[in-house]
Amino acid sequence: MKKFDQASAQAARARQDSLTKPRGALGRLEELAIFLAGWQGRVSPRLDQVQALIFAGNHGVMAQGVSPFPTSVTAQMVQNFRNGGAAINQICAAAGADLTVMPLELDRATGDFTQGNAMSAQEVHEAMACGADAVSPDSDLILLGEMGIGNSTVAAALAASVFGGEAGDWVGPGAGAAGEMLARKRRVVAEGLARHKPDTARETLAAFGGREQAAICGAVLRARELGIPVLLDGFICSAAAAVLTRDDPEALSHCLLGHESAEPGYQRLMAGLKMRPILSLDMRLGEGSGAAMALMILRGALSCHNGMATFAEAGIG
Amino acid sequence: MKKFDQASAQAARARQDSLTKPRGALGRLEELAIFLAGWQGRVSPRLDQVQALIFAGNHGVMAQGVSPFPTSVTAQMVQNFRNGGAAINQICAAAGADLTVMPLELDRATGDFTQGNAMSAQEVHEAMACGADAVSPDSDLILLGEMGIGNSTVAAALAASVFGGEAGDWVGPGAGAAGEMLARKRRVVAEGLARHKPDTARETLAAFGGREQAAICGAVLRARELGIPVLLDGFICSAAAAVLTRDDPEALSHCLLGHESAEPGYQRLMAGLKMRPILSLDMRLGEGSGAAMALMILRGALSCHNGMATFAEAGIG
Repeated sequence: MKKFDQASAQAARARQDSLTKPRGALGRLEELAIFLAGWQGRVSPRLDQVQALIFAGNHGVMAQGVSPFPTSVTAQMVQNFRNGGAAINQICAAAGADLTVMPLELDRATGDFTQGNAMSAQEVHEAMACGADAVSPDSDLILLGEMGIGNSTVAAALAASVFGGEAGDWVGPGAGAAGEMLARKRRVVAEGLARHKPDTARETLAAFGGREQAAICGAVLRARELGIPVLLDGFICSAAAAVLTRDDPEALSHCLLGHESAEPGYQRLMAGLKMRPILSLDMRLGEGSGAAMALMILRGALSCHNGMATFAEAGIG
Repeated sequence: MKKFDQASAQAARARQDSLTKPRGALGRLEELAIFLAGWQGRVSPRLDQVQALIFAGNHGVMAQGVSPFPTSVTAQMVQNFRNGGAAINQICAAAGADLTVMPLELDRATGDFTQGNAMSAQEVHEAMACGADAVSPDSDLILLGEMGIGNSTVAAALAASVFGGEAGDWVGPGAGAAGEMLARKRRVVAEGLARHKPDTARETLAAFGGREQAAICGAVLRARELGIPVLLDGFICSAAAAVLTRDDPEALSHCLLGHESAEPGYQRLMAGLKMRPILSLDMRLGEGSGAAMALMILRGALSCHNGMATFAEAGIG
């Protein structure tokens, strides 16, 4: 497993302090450049090959009536991604990322977690392997996103299982639950939390699902092995990756949070992860859209880091 | 003077509501696309020609010892911009903006506002005209930035004059004032506020300066005449433009705030302007760097607005 390269990060910090600006004046752009330097093991990090991976799955908990959209929309949106019509297609084109969409057995939803496990151990293993296999070793950065009608309910259950708290602390409107449906989402997550008491990351994924969440975990672990930094999207994607901290509190050290979700549980999720997202634009779409927007900020950060003159070069002092 | 085109904005809102995403799920990206539609008078706004204008000036108040850098750095940084070595060069290249740097009589600093007016009415007029003339009528968007050693002191004085409050509410470290120097900055701004009681925008610019602030005001007014939306940079640039609200509370309706400055007075400035910046990345550089980063967000917003499929096109529902 590749580690954060302290020497590259320190050299990147020294470079930042020599550039033609007051020390620290680029704020998070400086921190982000140094983060990428450490994980890529290069004083001058690059973003030549950026993979955006969207995993899609369907969820048995939809039987409980937790979303205003039917399960069939997941496959329709996958087709929309493939046709180039979704937000993530446009943002990846604008930000310079190669998009891969991976539907995971959409015609075979996971189990309803209020009735039993969402997935068997074997199903968890297969979905994680699918995520891991999608990561190209040549990538400079991986963006992760998801699609799956009903999966804000799954995300709330995962986050509550990992970080504790009541169902009501984590359940939000998702793609549009309100009123009685929102109250039902809370009850459904509370039922799931009462039924399942998983200890490990894999047990947690098996309990609540879904396949796309397991694939995200598999991709995060594989990227860590390869020393590739990762940009996570908003609430659902970050809650999925957070499951890994159950086995290792440092499991997401190579990850950045792309975008602050408007979902109410997100603030609690950030506190649990002790991380701070790059952007806050009131987005709540998923699909990796917030991560792809944050990629633009990373490009800006590296353009300064790699391209600016030093005080010595500019003859300023 | 061109006005916000309600019909284009309404058609853009209708388009947003037809795209393949839950209504409102792109958050501020939707608002920004509709804002650009209204000001450009097009349902599908564009950012083909984006001008980044940086105005640079020197300040008589530097005689009071308000900055750790010498006045000569202003000209050195202008040369650095021209050589392509500064942050704004890299970010403009990454974000797709044409950069123009306009030094305003750097060898003739304005007057020290603790001793008298910073500029005569004629000098204000000339600097504003310089800003107005820099705006190309073919531009789809204008980014504004500034450079001028000592001008965070000028910005604090302008903002306090427009919005009220004590000098201490508005004075911050700027490019690196601390300890006794920071205390001196506060005293200097308090002296200026006691000496000058301007009523109009031009009187305010004459009282406190500087030329780059007046040029920013000239560019904002000219862009408004032409119906070109404007992206303002952080504290100093936004404080300069805020002077125009003294004559017309709606003077900045066509402007967006690019980046939330870490300067302590910025929160108060946002409250005074009733505006919310697009980005918050702890940047405090000026040069237009925060506005140029925010341009990336506008590009993402328009890529979705102009490129996504509608539900009808995608056959989803």
